[in-house]
Amino acid sequence: MITLGIDPGTARTGFGLVLGDDDVTAGAYGIIETSATESMPKRLARLFAEIGELMDAYRPTALAIEELFFARNISTAMTVGQARGVVLLAAAIRGISVAEYKPAEVKQAVVGYGNADKRQVQEMVRIVLKLDTVPYPDDAADALAVALCHVQTSNFLRHLPEFSP
Amino acid sequence: MITLGIDPGTARTGFGLVLGDDDVTAGAYGIIETSATESMPKRLARLFAEIGELMDAYRPTALAIEELFFARNISTAMTVGQARGVVLLAAAIRGISVAEYKPAEVKQAVVGYGNADKRQVQEMVRIVLKLDTVPYPDDAADALAVALCHVQTSNFLRHLPEFSP
Repeated sequence: MITLGIDPGTARTGFGLVLGDDDVTAGAYGIIETSATESMPKRLARLFAEIGELMDAYRPTALAIEELFFARNISTAMTVGQARGVVLLAAAIRGISVAEYKPAEVKQAVVGYGNADKRQVQEMVRIVLKLDTVPYPDDAADALAVALCHVQTSNFLRHLPEFSP
Repeated sequence: MITLGIDPGTARTGFGLVLGDDDVTAGAYGIIETSATESMPKRLARLFAEIGELMDAYRPTALAIEELFFARNISTAMTVGQARGVVLLAAAIRGISVAEYKPAEVKQAVVGYGNADKRQVQEMVRIVLKLDTVPYPDDAADALAVALCHVQTSNFLRHLPEFSP
């Protein structure tokens, strides 16, 4: 199972690949940045192209993304929505299934505690994925966290007796 | 000059073509609807495909869209943002320039009054485009309004002495 976690934004979109199910490791992770000197349509086109390249290179089984995060205001929500729309579109075009998780679900799955703080989540991401250091930057760590959340949720469902084949 | 106005949304996206500059007429207008029974990524893929077909069929010079509208809440803004992102992407991929206008700018341009109400805007759209009835549904009328705003703004710039060739 290859899970691509995404933390969307127009300025920077974090991405992180989690490989495996019971025993997990980190694949590529990082950020896709677009320049503020370019128009919004061009920035969205760049994000669409780069996220598509990632998907074509790593062929993820699923894309995991946070459902609705805290937005400072309507304008921020609209901007993040634009980046999110382009990412969901890139997945839909390739037939990659999309799973959405609430921020509290990600914290619950990764740390075992829905009110965990950012640092706790990042430290658990580091430990579970056996990394030497906390993934950098934050957007990449957040992307790995939501990918891990998806893997753990899928494992849970897979191990339930009524879901066994 | 062929201007494609768009009023974006995931459930329904209004579109309207305005042909000409000084003497304007309405081209095709209407809505693109997606089914609530489908997943969000699939709905965005459908919107992307249909808006792309429109662009390829009518080859607009420019796409006009409202900059930031009143959103009831963060969740609505995020959802509209997703549809908007897909529309801007479709334009960027085809090299169609995008012009954004504030709601008050659209009212000012179409009615001559930034606080005009929805009915006044729709009635002026009908009159200026020489239509027998007000365009239906509202999303299509709103799309024609923002397209008209773009045409009038472009005319104004074109007729300024310092912008003349």
